[in-house]
Amino acid sequence: MATGLKTAVVGATGFSGEELTRLLSRHPKVQAPMLLSRSGRQSEGVAPEREQVSPSWDLLKQQKIELLFLATPHEVSRELAPEAIAAGLRVIDLSGAWRLKQQQHRAIYEFKDEDSLTAAQVTEKAVYGLPELNAECIAGARLVANPGCYATSVILALAPLLKADIVDRSRGIISDSKSGVSGAGKALSARTHFISVADNFSAYSLFNHRHNGEIAEQLGLDTSEFTFTPHLLPIPRGILSTIYLYLKRKMNSAEVEVCFRDAYTDKPWVRVLSSPSLPEIRHSLHTNFCDLGFCLADDGQRLIVIACLDNLLKGAAGQAVQNMNLMYGWSEQDGLQ
Amino acid sequence: MATGLKTAVVGATGFSGEELTRLLSRHPKVQAPMLLSRSGRQSEGVAPEREQVSPSWDLLKQQKIELLFLATPHEVSRELAPEAIAAGLRVIDLSGAWRLKQQQHRAIYEFKDEDSLTAAQVTEKAVYGLPELNAECIAGARLVANPGCYATSVILALAPLLKADIVDRSRGIISDSKSGVSGAGKALSARTHFISVADNFSAYSLFNHRHNGEIAEQLGLDTSEFTFTPHLLPIPRGILSTIYLYLKRKMNSAEVEVCFRDAYTDKPWVRVLSSPSLPEIRHSLHTNFCDLGFCLADDGQRLIVIACLDNLLKGAAGQAVQNMNLMYGWSEQDGLQ
Amino acid sequence: MATGLKTAVVGATGFSGEELTRLLSRHPKVQAPMLLSRSGRQSEGVAPEREQVSPSWDLLKQQKIELLFLATPHEVSRELAPEAIAAGLRVIDLSGAWRLKQQQHRAIYEFKDEDSLTAAQVTEKAVYGLPELNAECIAGARLVANPGCYATSVILALAPLLKADIVDRSRGIISDSKSGVSGAGKALSARTHFISVADNFSAYSLFNHRHNGEIAEQLGLDTSEFTFTPHLLPIPRGILSTIYLYLKRKMNSAEVEVCFRDAYTDKPWVRVLSSPSLPEIRHSLHTNFCDLGFCLADDGQRLIVIACLDNLLKGAAGQAVQNMNLMYGWSEQDGLQ
Amino acid sequence: MATGLKTAVVGATGFSGEELTRLLSRHPKVQAPMLLSRSGRQSEGVAPEREQVSPSWDLLKQQKIELLFLATPHEVSRELAPEAIAAGLRVIDLSGAWRLKQQQHRAIYEFKDEDSLTAAQVTEKAVYGLPELNAECIAGARLVANPGCYATSVILALAPLLKADIVDRSRGIISDSKSGVSGAGKALSARTHFISVADNFSAYSLFNHRHNGEIAEQLGLDTSEFTFTPHLLPIPRGILSTIYLYLKRKMNSAEVEVCFRDAYTDKPWVRVLSSPSLPEIRHSLHTNFCDLGFCLADDGQRLIVIACLDNLLKGAAGQAVQNMNLMYGWSEQDGLQ
Repeated sequence: MATGLKTAVVGATGFSGEELTRLLSRHPKVQAPMLLSRSGRQSEGVAPEREQVSPSWDLLKQQKIELLFLATPHEVSRELAPEAIAAGLRVIDLSGAWRLKQQQHRAIYEFKDEDSLTAAQVTEKAVYGLPELNAECIAGARLVANPGCYATSVILALAPLLKADIVDRSRGIISDSKSGVSGAGKALSARTHFISVADNFSAYSLFNHRHNGEIAEQLGLDTSEFTFTPHLLPIPRGILSTIYLYLKRKMNSAEVEVCFRDAYTDKPWVRVLSSPSLPEIRHSLHTNFCDLGFCLADDGQRLIVIACLDNLLKGAAGQAVQNMNLMYGWSEQDGLQ
Repeated sequence: MATGLKTAVVGATGFSGEELTRLLSRHPKVQAPMLLSRSGRQSEGVAPEREQVSPSWDLLKQQKIELLFLATPHEVSRELAPEAIAAGLRVIDLSGAWRLKQQQHRAIYEFKDEDSLTAAQVTEKAVYGLPELNAECIAGARLVANPGCYATSVILALAPLLKADIVDRSRGIISDSKSGVSGAGKALSARTHFISVADNFSAYSLFNHRHNGEIAEQLGLDTSEFTFTPHLLPIPRGILSTIYLYLKRKMNSAEVEVCFRDAYTDKPWVRVLSSPSLPEIRHSLHTNFCDLGFCLADDGQRLIVIACLDNLLKGAAGQAVQNMNLMYGWSEQDGLQ
Repeated sequence: MATGLKTAVVGATGFSGEELTRLLSRHPKVQAPMLLSRSGRQSEGVAPEREQVSPSWDLLKQQKIELLFLATPHEVSRELAPEAIAAGLRVIDLSGAWRLKQQQHRAIYEFKDEDSLTAAQVTEKAVYGLPELNAECIAGARLVANPGCYATSVILALAPLLKADIVDRSRGIISDSKSGVSGAGKALSARTHFISVADNFSAYSLFNHRHNGEIAEQLGLDTSEFTFTPHLLPIPRGILSTIYLYLKRKMNSAEVEVCFRDAYTDKPWVRVLSSPSLPEIRHSLHTNFCDLGFCLADDGQRLIVIACLDNLLKGAAGQAVQNMNLMYGWSEQDGLQ
Repeated sequence: MATGLKTAVVGATGFSGEELTRLLSRHPKVQAPMLLSRSGRQSEGVAPEREQVSPSWDLLKQQKIELLFLATPHEVSRELAPEAIAAGLRVIDLSGAWRLKQQQHRAIYEFKDEDSLTAAQVTEKAVYGLPELNAECIAGARLVANPGCYATSVILALAPLLKADIVDRSRGIISDSKSGVSGAGKALSARTHFISVADNFSAYSLFNHRHNGEIAEQLGLDTSEFTFTPHLLPIPRGILSTIYLYLKRKMNSAEVEVCFRDAYTDKPWVRVLSSPSLPEIRHSLHTNFCDLGFCLADDGQRLIVIACLDNLLKGAAGQAVQNMNLMYGWSEQDGLQ
C-alpha cells in the first residue's frame, strides 16, 4: 500500500463517495485515498481522524496527492474544482457542475458565477468523462466531468445509432428511464422515506430533468427531438432505460446488432446482447457494466433499446475509476473486476 | 345474506378470483357467491365443501344462480362461457377469451375453435366491459369480456384524446407500462420466484404482448401506430403506464385537462389530476380508481399521460363488480367503496 | 352523514391518524371527523380548510364534538388530554402518555409533570384500552389509553396463559418481536430512509423499549421475568411476535389450545389457529385481527406462541375504533369490517 | 489461469453453487473450476460445453482435478462423496449430508444407507468445516462438511461463551433466527413466489429444523437445552440470529466482550462489535464476515447476542473457500476480499 497513485476524495460519506472509496481502497495501482469531508458527517467505517473540515491545498501538495475526486453537490464542486486545478491537481468531478458546455442547458443548474472568467475557462477545459466515447480526451484531461447515471445509460444506447446516422430524429426519440433510490442521494426527504417508496412507483421531473440537457448536448440532439422521463423504482440501486426511436429505413436485427457491436468491440464495460435477449437490472448490479439489448418491430423501423447499469458504479463511482485508469494510462478494467 | 343476487365464481383461488370473492362477499346486493374450482386447488379461507370439480349447469339452475364469473385461464373461459350462456346464465369473463373481435388480434390467443359456429356467435355477442366507455351495452349484455389490466390503464388514458381527435396518430403513440407481480398470476415460474423479482426490474414481450391487440382494437388504432412495452415491477400489485403522444396542434394544459374532465365527469372510478400533479401507484392501491395525470411539453405538442390503477381491482375484480353493477342497474359504486 | 357521533382527531397526518380518519369516515355510526392539526402539516386528501392550528375547546363544544382522538406524540397528548377532559370531552389517546400507572415504568417517558396533581388524577382515571381484557372499564371510561402496537401482540398472546396460571414465570418469558417501518412514524430519519431499511433487518432498543414496561405492568410481570426485543422489518406494516416460555407442567397441544379458545371465544378480533398452523403477517394486514398460533415442544413444556397484527389497525387506529365502539355500546365490529 | 489448484463444482446452478463458482473463478491460487451438473439445468453465464450430465471420476483424474465441491442436495452428496473419495479426490460438501455424527440427529435426514459400512466410514472421516473452531482438522481433511448457514451464525455466537463455561445451560438457550429467501434454494414453490414473501414475514419448522441437531451436536448441548426458530425475511439474502441466554453469574459488558475477543482475535472473518453497537444484516452482505454484537441486561445475567452473516458466503460458498484455503495451507482470506 506504500506505493501507487495518491488520491483524495471529498464527499466520501454519500452513496457514490462510499462506493468510490471502496473501489480506490482495493485498486492495485492506487494508495488508500485521503478522505475529506465538507459536511462533518462521518462515513460508516471511515476512521474519523482521516477526515477534516475542508481541503487544505497546501496539505494535499505536501502529501503529494495528484488526483482529487469530488463526490460533492454541484455547488460545492463548482467552488472546489477551480481551486484544485490552480493548486496543480487533476480532478474527477462526479457532480453535474462541469458537464455542460452550452449555456442553454447549464441554466438548469442556476450557477451564480456565469460571468466569472475562471468558471468559463474551467468549463472550457472540462472533458465529458464517458470513456467509451471520449477516451483520448480523458487521457489528457485536467478536469473530468463524470457523466450522470441516467445520461450514461441513454448516451451509450443511442450514440452508435446516431453515429451510424440510421435514426429518424424527426420522429422523436424517447427515453423512459427508471432508477433505484440511491440515485436520489442520502439527504432525508419524504420522497425517500421507506413508506413512500416501498410498494410504489412514480414518474418525476417530466420534460424537466437535468440529465435532459446533458444527453441532448452529448448526442447533438435538439431538446425538442428528445424526451426523457425518469421514474423512481422501489429498489436500492440500478437503472433501466427503455428507449424508443424510429429508424430512417427498414433494417433487420442483425444489422442493428452489428451497429452496436462495431461501436463497443474493444470496450470492456459495455455488453451487447443479441436479440431477443434483453438486459435486466440485476445482471448489472455491483458491476461496472452497461448492458445493451434491443428489439426491432416487424415493420423494421420501430426500435426499442434497453440499457441497464448500476447507478453507483457505471453510473458514478465505477465510471470515475474507469476515467482515472484512462488518465494514468492503465487498463480500463483495473480495480473494477 | 338470504336475499340478493345469486352468483358463482369459477377460479376463486387465483389472485383475481380471491379479490373477486372478497368483493362479492361484502357487496350489499349480492349473496355470498358459490365457489367453483376446476383445479381442485383450494383457496385459503374458502370452505372446501363449497368447491366442486367442475360446474354442473343443472345444479347452478337449481340453485337459481343468475350470474357466473369466470376467473379462469382463457382456454377454460373459451370452453365454459358458451355452455353457461346456453344454460341461461349471464357471464362476466375476466380472461382474454372474448375481448377481441378482430381475427388479426385474436390469433395471439391461438384458439383451436376459430371456425366453430358457436364460438363465432358468442364472440359476436360479447361486450367489452370497460364501464366508462360502454356502459349502455354492458347493461344489456349476456357476456361481458372484462378488460385486461394494462389495457384498462391505456384505454382510459387515451380514449378522451382520440375521441376529441387531437392526437397526431401518424407520429405514433407509445405506452411504457409497468406492473406488479400479481399480474403474472399464481402459477409458479422462475420469473416469479422472489429472488428473480426482488431488487430487479425488466421489460418483456416487446412488440408482442396480448394487450397490444386489445388496446389497438378498442381505440381503433393500427398496430403500427401504437407501441406497448410491459415491464415487471418488484411490488405485489399496481400498474403505472407512461404514455407518449403528439398533439395535432399546440395546446395548453388547461385545454388538455378539459378534455379529460369532460370525458370522466360522471364517472366515479376515474380521477383526473390537474397538472403538475401526477398519479403514483400507491394512491390507487386497494381501490377501484384509475388515476390519470398528464404533462405537456413547452412546445405544446408533446404530451405525456400517466395512468395508475390496482391491477387486481380496476384492472380485474373491481371492474368485474362495476360491470355487474351496470348489468343489474345498480350504482357503479356499490360494493366497491 | 348528518347524524351520528361527532368526533375530532388531532394528528390526522401521521400514519395512525390517517388510518383512523379513514376508518371514522366510513363508520356507520359516526359523522366525518373534524380534523385538527398541531403541526400544520396537511394530510393528503384532507381539505385544508378543515384543519386549524390547535384545538379550541369552545369551538369543539359549540360543534357538539363528544369524543376526541389524540394521534399525537406522547408529550402533546400529555398536555391536551387533561384540557379535553376538563372541557367535558371523552378522549381516546393513541400515544403512550397515559398507559402506565406504575412510576417505575412511566419514568421512561420522561414526563416533566410527574408531581402535577392534574396529571396524577388523569393517570388514575385512564383506562388501558385493550378491549379483549378491559371491555367493561372501557365502556365507562372518560380517557382510554390505546395500547402500543407491540404490546397488543404480546399481551393478547400471554394473558390467557398467565391467567390460567400455567406459565413457569421463574424461567423467564421472551418476546422476540418484529415490526414493519410504519411503526417508526413519519418523521424523517436516517433509520427510515429506504436505503437503510430495504434488504436489511436489525434489532434495536434491547432491554430498553418503552413497551417493555407497558407489557410487564399489564401482565403483572416483574421486568426481570420478561425480555422484549424489537426488530425492524423491511416492509411497510405488520407485526409478528415470537414468544418463548416454559409451562409449569407437561401439557399437550389440545390443552393449550383450549386455554386460548376459552379466553377469546366471544372476541371477534382475535383468531386462534390450531397447531401446527401458524399466523403470518400478510393474513392480518389491512384487518383489525390479532392472529394467534402456537407450537409446543415434544417435552410438553417449552411453548412458542406467535402473534400477528397490523400495527396501524389492531395495533393503533383499528383498536381505537374498537374502543370507541365499546364506549358507546355498539358492536365491537362496527366500522371495522 | 494456467497454474493453480484444479477444482470441480457439482451443482453450479444453485444459489450457493453460483456464488462458489464466482469466488473460485477469481481466486488467485485456483484455476477456473470445471462445472458439473446433475440436473442438466444450465447456470446463466456458464458455457454449456463445460457441463456434463454426471461426474466421470476417470475424466476428473485425467484432468488432474484435486478438489471437488458438492453444492448438491444432501441425497446427492450422500451418493457422490464416497465415490469421489474412493477416486482419490478431496471433497468439500455444502449440503447437510455429512455434518452429523450422532445418529439421533442424523435421523432427520432420513438416509437410506444408515447401515452401510461405507457411509459409516465416510461419516467418521468427515470434518465439520467451521474454520474458526476446527482449523487444524480441516487442514488435513479428506472430506469437509461445510456448516449450515443458520448453524454458522449460532455456533459462532455461542461457542466462546460455552467454552468459557459462563452460560447457565439449565435455563435454556434460544436462537430466534431470520433468513433471506435464497436460503430456501432455487426450487419453485408457493412459499418462494414473490407474492408469498413480499410484505410478509413468518416462522417455520418450529422445534423441528435440521440445523437444530447440527447446532446442538457442535456445541455439546442437549436438544432440550436449545430452542431454534427460523423465520423467512422478505429480502434476497442475509441471516440475523437473536440469541437469548442466562449467564451463570453476574458479569459486566467488558467481561463478555473479552470473552468474544479472546476467541476471535486472530480470526479474520469474525468481527466483534463493542456494546452497544449491534450488527445489521446489510453490513455483512456480499462479505464473508460473521458479525457479532451483544447486550447485557442491567441484572448482569440476561444476555442477548446478535449474529449476522451472508447466508450464501459465510453461510455457504465463502466458508467453503475459507475451508479450501485451510486445506491447502493458504491464508484464510485468499480469494474472499
